[in-house]
Amino acid sequence: MSQTLPGALERAIEELSKLPGIGPKTAARLSFWLLSKPSAEVEKLGKSIAELHSSIKFCDRCGHVTDKDAPMAEEPSTWAGKTLCGICRDSRRNQAQVMVVEQPLDVIALEKTGQYRGLYHVLGGVLSPVEGISPEHLRMELFFRRIKEEPIEEIILATNPSLEGEATALYLSQRVDRAKARVTRIARGLPVGGDLEYADEMTLLRALEGRQSFE
Amino acid sequence: MSQTLPGALERAIEELSKLPGIGPKTAARLSFWLLSKPSAEVEKLGKSIAELHSSIKFCDRCGHVTDKDAPMAEEPSTWAGKTLCGICRDSRRNQAQVMVVEQPLDVIALEKTGQYRGLYHVLGGVLSPVEGISPEHLRMELFFRRIKEEPIEEIILATNPSLEGEATALYLSQRVDRAKARVTRIARGLPVGGDLEYADEMTLLRALEGRQSFE
Repeated sequence: MSQTLPGALERAIEELSKLPGIGPKTAARLSFWLLSKPSAEVEKLGKSIAELHSSIKFCDRCGHVTDKDAPMAEEPSTWAGKTLCGICRDSRRNQAQVMVVEQPLDVIALEKTGQYRGLYHVLGGVLSPVEGISPEHLRMELFFRRIKEEPIEEIILATNPSLEGEATALYLSQRVDRAKARVTRIARGLPVGGDLEYADEMTLLRALEGRQSFE
Repeated sequence: MSQTLPGALERAIEELSKLPGIGPKTAARLSFWLLSKPSAEVEKLGKSIAELHSSIKFCDRCGHVTDKDAPMAEEPSTWAGKTLCGICRDSRRNQAQVMVVEQPLDVIALEKTGQYRGLYHVLGGVLSPVEGISPEHLRMELFFRRIKEEPIEEIILATNPSLEGEATALYLSQRVDRAKARVTRIARGLPVGGDLEYADEMTLLRALEGRQSFE
């Protein structure tokens, strides 16, 4: 058919429509939008996506993202020859605290507070029987090994306050040796700047349960 | 800062957040989603975007998209040596009809009906004083030249039924030689499967104005 789209355009639409939340119509609109932009800019976008995997690695210890060309860990640590992220390589961080999160994005959000100086452990998701995600699909074995081998005194469970996040926190809390480390859960309550009137019941319940004495 | 994101990830987030409707947060989520996919698939997406501009051209006659390596028009036409799209190269199409649309996506939508067998003219947008888009920003001079030089008998104005689309149609209708070609406007009315109860006033007004005798 002479009337169909140029092959390159059809390929771009097909690939873009695989992105989450982008259907074929939005993909077509995005492709034409890209065609209307300077070619150098569009090539830059394409290149940055194509190079994503080849330039990034995951930390062998905590699972956070790091540069592919980050230096390997030096002897004589347990992690000699392995890839470590910037946080794991930083010896000034508190080696006795580990915060368990779902995704690397959570690490970034927490780092922005500038207050936490311990280590992290990125699970790479949450337990979800519905989606068929069980402990072996997450970075859990590694976590239990770290608890055993590292001088960890506090485990802060910082999975999301969602159904799956709570279940995952509960599961982890039951599996770790409480004699070895204290297990805490981040507080759930009213968000700062939020409105009590508009808060849902679960949030209000958590805010009440977690109330602290006023000094 | 050792805590910041790997450079490749930051570049991908920055580039993705330039897309329309995608903010920095969605861009970050998209980037991590891409990282969770097989690297071959992500490279395919990146490549398809990077190659978009280098593989696609616009038709020198109607402005529709076409393959970069499409054959050049042959002598002895006016378009000898120029790039022509599949529709313009198809001599079986009715050379006496030209449909004026805003975007290549409109051509694709119209071609899907399989009913229109004439030619197109893609303006590349609409007149918009607010956004500073005047006739010289659109493919209008070329359009007036085509009306003069080609054996066109009917001009179908198929810009969108929006404020700008209507203004653009009006502008074009006033600028073409009515003695040479009949000028028509696509019908505005209730969409098929639509509900009269939920239609806006302007659509109802147009549907009434454009009423046809019942046979």
